[in-house]
Amino acid sequence: MRTLEWDSSSRELRLINQRALPGRFEVLAYCDYQSVAGAIQDMTVRGAPAIGVAAAYGLALAGLASAAVDRNGFFQDLQTAAMVLRQSRPTAVNLTWALERMLAFAGRFDGDVPAIKDAILEEAGRMADEDVQVNLRIAENGAGLIEDGDTIIHHCNTGALATVDWGTALGIIRKAHEQGKRLHVLVDETRPRLQGARLTAWELQQYGISFEIITDNAAGYFLHSGQVQKILFGADRVAANGDVANKVGSYMLALAARDNQVPVYSVFPCSTIDLLTPSGDDIPVEERSAQEVLDIQFQGEAAAPAGARARNPAFDITPARLISAYVTEAGIIHQPFQTNYLALEGREG
Amino acid sequence: MRTLEWDSSSRELRLINQRALPGRFEVLAYCDYQSVAGAIQDMTVRGAPAIGVAAAYGLALAGLASAAVDRNGFFQDLQTAAMVLRQSRPTAVNLTWALERMLAFAGRFDGDVPAIKDAILEEAGRMADEDVQVNLRIAENGAGLIEDGDTIIHHCNTGALATVDWGTALGIIRKAHEQGKRLHVLVDETRPRLQGARLTAWELQQYGISFEIITDNAAGYFLHSGQVQKILFGADRVAANGDVANKVGSYMLALAARDNQVPVYSVFPCSTIDLLTPSGDDIPVEERSAQEVLDIQFQGEAAAPAGARARNPAFDITPARLISAYVTEAGIIHQPFQTNYLALEGREG
Repeated sequence: MRTLEWDSSSRELRLINQRALPGRFEVLAYCDYQSVAGAIQDMTVRGAPAIGVAAAYGLALAGLASAAVDRNGFFQDLQTAAMVLRQSRPTAVNLTWALERMLAFAGRFDGDVPAIKDAILEEAGRMADEDVQVNLRIAENGAGLIEDGDTIIHHCNTGALATVDWGTALGIIRKAHEQGKRLHVLVDETRPRLQGARLTAWELQQYGISFEIITDNAAGYFLHSGQVQKILFGADRVAANGDVANKVGSYMLALAARDNQVPVYSVFPCSTIDLLTPSGDDIPVEERSAQEVLDIQFQGEAAAPAGARARNPAFDITPARLISAYVTEAGIIHQPFQTNYLALEGREG
Repeated sequence: MRTLEWDSSSRELRLINQRALPGRFEVLAYCDYQSVAGAIQDMTVRGAPAIGVAAAYGLALAGLASAAVDRNGFFQDLQTAAMVLRQSRPTAVNLTWALERMLAFAGRFDGDVPAIKDAILEEAGRMADEDVQVNLRIAENGAGLIEDGDTIIHHCNTGALATVDWGTALGIIRKAHEQGKRLHVLVDETRPRLQGARLTAWELQQYGISFEIITDNAAGYFLHSGQVQKILFGADRVAANGDVANKVGSYMLALAARDNQVPVYSVFPCSTIDLLTPSGDDIPVEERSAQEVLDIQFQGEAAAPAGARARNPAFDITPARLISAYVTEAGIIHQPFQTNYLALEGREG
């Protein structure tokens, strides 16, 4: 199944529970926008593209639940739901992008309330389908960068689970593997929530791609010893100057790659680009609960002493100067980012 | 108690079990060199200075157990034990240094076998006492680098537990705290064995020093956002050119510090310096069991899927160009390392 699917008989959104993997494959059902916002916040669903589409379905659920009889009342209900959904996670811009697209679509739609309800549910479905198509184009665009025999360090999870299906950076790896290229992936475990060890490793097992898990801090060793040819990771927001907000650790990984002349590719759909944010320093970085850092056991025993405190930024900013190229569904974007992105999109600068 | 102590009544070496902390404070007793080598290998005792002295006591235990009646047979027994102890961990040079010092001392000692047995046991005791004195001088030399109000990122554990007592990099922090400087430590958890979260956090609690645990990959976020004034870590071997082998992750931390103009100090006794090793690329990096990476639980569940493999280098090399200065008992050494170290020691280059 897809990471998220609409069940048209029960009129519920069904999500693969990413908190339970790899131990258990579990699907949870959601019938109101508040619980969808909760699932985004607690990372039952995560990955910038996936949370965008989940939020779109959340808004569709808010529409279905609205008791409003006229368009004004209905739009007020949608706005309320959009505000709650938008605040569920602050860094990834895909969330805002998806909600704005849904609201704009609803605003343009000419019909009574029951008709709008059906229409925005269909629009959420289109966004889900488009996400898969976009990811397939990203994979095709990026697979050419991968050479036979490459060892790739991949950070966090950017696979099918991070999107509706297929994935972004991991989608490229999957596509290159399907093209017959021999690959090996060093999977950054990605503390604190270990999306690499838990989710990327699990996906790579499904795809039959060779991999080994490494601690995040070991990437420098493998890069310096010449064992790595490429770095691939996703993005949660790309600023106008090409700075990339992505899962915490991406910045240190990119620094280590640069120090060893290994190329770094950030991979994302164009909906991740936020030209209204001038630079990475303007991107809000979510700081999550200290408990995510502290709640691990090593060899069966609690790691941190009782009473210890922790800090837990979920993202960091990789400056554009450390990114070799950006891979999107529109094509590969080289530096300078904004100029080349706008040229690719055929827009005015 | 000290991290390691000789019990003269039972004639056993007693070690604080660093695998059990912070959950349990447990002292284990060792009466033969083979089990001491095992304790070094499985990291019941760890930290470059501590394993040096533990190996010295291991050699003393081998001496006590020797059934040889003449000097030749006795020295053969010592050599056999030294070989086993030396191989217990390959990267830290303190181990080799301590064993060579013990063997040279025994070789110079003029007496019969029973007398040598007593003498080398006393020599191991002198090395333990000297380690504490050396660390106190390191702390005094380094404390002047720390300013009131500093936030310091510290990697791995370099405290009392990593030495016989007091510590190296953490000893500087402790001394600056005793001098009344207000400090805050961001404790790198230091995957995979989490010596930061388990041991450094526990020590800082004992000393009453303010700290928060961070994931290793979050250091870049805190450095880039201007929240950090100093980086301190230890060393397991320093090559002639000033390259530092230290706990894996030190290199990426130093890169992130350099990218944000934050000084990096590597702190160690002179016994960690290995002028016979030209550069970091000549230092053997120990790769430990994959199980150390895989055997963690996040929120009560296994992180990696069944069947996943892992790589586990225990150290990496931080090139001299990223080290702002080295702090030793002989003084603070600036670049170029070898020239200034030899000048400090009053030796010929």
